[in-house]
Amino acid sequence: MNLPERIHEANLNALDAMRQANPVWVDVRPALEVLPGMSKNTVLHAGPPIAWEDMCGPQKMGVQQALIYEGLVDDEEAAAAMIRAGEVVLAPCHEYQAVGGMAGITSASSPMVVVRNEQHGNYAYSQLFQGPAGGLQDRDAYNVEARKQWRWLDSVLGPTLAVKEVGGLPVKPIIARALEMGDECHNRNSAGSSLILNALVEAMFKTCRDRETLRQSIAYLSWADQFSLCVSMAAAKATTDAAKNIPYSTVVTTMARNGVDFGIKVSGLGEQWFTGPAQRVEGLYFSSDWGDDDAVPDMGDSAIMETYGIGGHVQAAAPALQQFVSGSFSRAVALTREMGQITVGTMDEYRIPNMDFATAPIATDIRKVVQTGVTPVIDTAIAHKKGGVIGAGQTRAPQQCFSEALRAFAAKYRTPGAA
Amino acid sequence: MNLPERIHEANLNALDAMRQANPVWVDVRPALEVLPGMSKNTVLHAGPPIAWEDMCGPQKMGVQQALIYEGLVDDEEAAAAMIRAGEVVLAPCHEYQAVGGMAGITSASSPMVVVRNEQHGNYAYSQLFQGPAGGLQDRDAYNVEARKQWRWLDSVLGPTLAVKEVGGLPVKPIIARALEMGDECHNRNSAGSSLILNALVEAMFKTCRDRETLRQSIAYLSWADQFSLCVSMAAAKATTDAAKNIPYSTVVTTMARNGVDFGIKVSGLGEQWFTGPAQRVEGLYFSSDWGDDDAVPDMGDSAIMETYGIGGHVQAAAPALQQFVSGSFSRAVALTREMGQITVGTMDEYRIPNMDFATAPIATDIRKVVQTGVTPVIDTAIAHKKGGVIGAGQTRAPQQCFSEALRAFAAKYRTPGAA
Repeated sequence: MNLPERIHEANLNALDAMRQANPVWVDVRPALEVLPGMSKNTVLHAGPPIAWEDMCGPQKMGVQQALIYEGLVDDEEAAAAMIRAGEVVLAPCHEYQAVGGMAGITSASSPMVVVRNEQHGNYAYSQLFQGPAGGLQDRDAYNVEARKQWRWLDSVLGPTLAVKEVGGLPVKPIIARALEMGDECHNRNSAGSSLILNALVEAMFKTCRDRETLRQSIAYLSWADQFSLCVSMAAAKATTDAAKNIPYSTVVTTMARNGVDFGIKVSGLGEQWFTGPAQRVEGLYFSSDWGDDDAVPDMGDSAIMETYGIGGHVQAAAPALQQFVSGSFSRAVALTREMGQITVGTMDEYRIPNMDFATAPIATDIRKVVQTGVTPVIDTAIAHKKGGVIGAGQTRAPQQCFSEALRAFAAKYRTPGAA
Repeated sequence: MNLPERIHEANLNALDAMRQANPVWVDVRPALEVLPGMSKNTVLHAGPPIAWEDMCGPQKMGVQQALIYEGLVDDEEAAAAMIRAGEVVLAPCHEYQAVGGMAGITSASSPMVVVRNEQHGNYAYSQLFQGPAGGLQDRDAYNVEARKQWRWLDSVLGPTLAVKEVGGLPVKPIIARALEMGDECHNRNSAGSSLILNALVEAMFKTCRDRETLRQSIAYLSWADQFSLCVSMAAAKATTDAAKNIPYSTVVTTMARNGVDFGIKVSGLGEQWFTGPAQRVEGLYFSSDWGDDDAVPDMGDSAIMETYGIGGHVQAAAPALQQFVSGSFSRAVALTREMGQITVGTMDEYRIPNMDFATAPIATDIRKVVQTGVTPVIDTAIAHKKGGVIGAGQTRAPQQCFSEALRAFAAKYRTPGAA
């Protein structure tokens, strides 16, 4: 086989791994118990690796809060000193089999959605959806509220989500149904979140004996209409990880952002990151108090959804989101078709009813991105520089990471006898 | 003003009444307590009036079962004798401010969704969604199961639906959101049903002290993905009733079927029924055991949804349903546009995202139906001749009832000094 033939075959294998993956939500456990290599003084963040001093505001703030939350320090100053002294392991969630929305801050006691890919046997993890925490007027009050919410998630909600009682919750059927119900499963998760409440509520009822715990948990799930994203993200990670490390494959297996850099990984290039600048998010702010000057560039591991082939790739499934980008249904359809130009194949189970059940375009090929100049479109929330979600919209992955990955691919595989 | 001008003005008033209506689900009460004129020996049925001997199989069966259920007789034979002796009041639900899905059987102890139109002060009622009851193999077993389900609905679920605790549930926002989530709110109610569970679950939890009652009720709501239809139907009835009895108006205020006749009422013609033959439903049977020979023609008061301007009128909102009629998204869009030809206006709150947020076409004008030859398209379930729902699909209202209504309208209003 010549090189193009080898790449073609490898990419079909990567596509097949993603198609066959069967992610099942099996448990909720503290990060320290389940993440391989996790320690009490490790704090994980979204996106590619970044040094403490280079982090954007919300990530810096989140790391400090995590150290306070874990009882390692008393205040932000002590947290900063501990980090500067090299006593804190800072690393991307992605390097611990995890993904984290927005800043992605994950520490030892964070309750993690545990997803097992029943087809390949690998696991992936995501924090629980945290919900908004207080206002932005007062940083200290905001942080106190955020820590209270973390405590509630790890002590109340996490142990109450009776996924074990239902024998695990297969995530693919939930995503497939949500796509029929106006979600694209990244910026819009109203249907998916309802489906999860529907699937779990009776089992939660059976297993939780404390009435107030149960009331709070049910109230949260019936309110938190972005909840399913954390489950979908872990499922997407468990799926894309199964397509990793296939020699000769040019399929993208990770896309993640830390508010400074946008990073990708490519199947045939293993765990190497290729980065470009995180882009501005075009969208709508939830209040007229906020504008582009307040916003952090594209941030979070949630682009694992587009890596999977959901979210921006299938936005025709969620025309309601066009309201955030002054778009139209035909624009959404055009973007979904455009994603078809840079992907290897489609996922039969994921269909878009209002495109006559067209299948979702999955498995992005870095060669096609470079050839066409079309970069993946990313649906995303917008974070405030001082923390908190202040809007939602859309952006694109930067060309640069794909070009650099392709150069590295050429260097690795053009050498005779490589791989 | 000449006659066309008077009609135009009257129709805008009817449209306005429907637009302004604010239906709120306020309670669940037994029929005997809330339906004006209801008595212990009254059994209501779907559609226009029909004599006992002319009823289709499921309605006959339902009436008999209701008499057994209410403890008035011991068996079907005694029920038939009681009816023939003239000791049972048989009447359309619509004549008791109510609507009933499929056969529409409603008796004294039936638990009714109570909807108040806060704008106009009128009330409307609908039975709770009953769910499937047993198989069709054995008539007696089926009926025993059905009666058990009725008992459960009136003694367990009905009193547990804590709509009063939440201060009443406005139905328009639920329908509007469901339309964004792939429901057309007649044949597909997955989103609406989830939204209702989300809206009520915490309040149910607070008000119901019996753990097993609560578990059963939550389990039912999380399973019954057609549940919201009964709430939407009562809301539609409370809305269309507000447009009734406007002199000179040619707007349709009722469409209902009893499996034999399809009947309509027209605003300027008060409570008079105009009927045509109920049509065959084109659709899909849930099992290959069933076919057209098993099916009852179009049946049920659920066409109140199309009278309102939902269901068939907005089917582009629910492209998934095209699978029942071998259709396509463009077919659904074309039908929605076609309904625009026979309606007076649109409902701003009800939008179809994948038609770039086009508004729902509401208030059908009998003149436009007769002029264009376009009849309302009705999304509907299919009933078995021996009872039970066996499929779903689409049909059309028959031309005849619109032509006859228009003739009656001309006779009434062409006379100088009429109305």
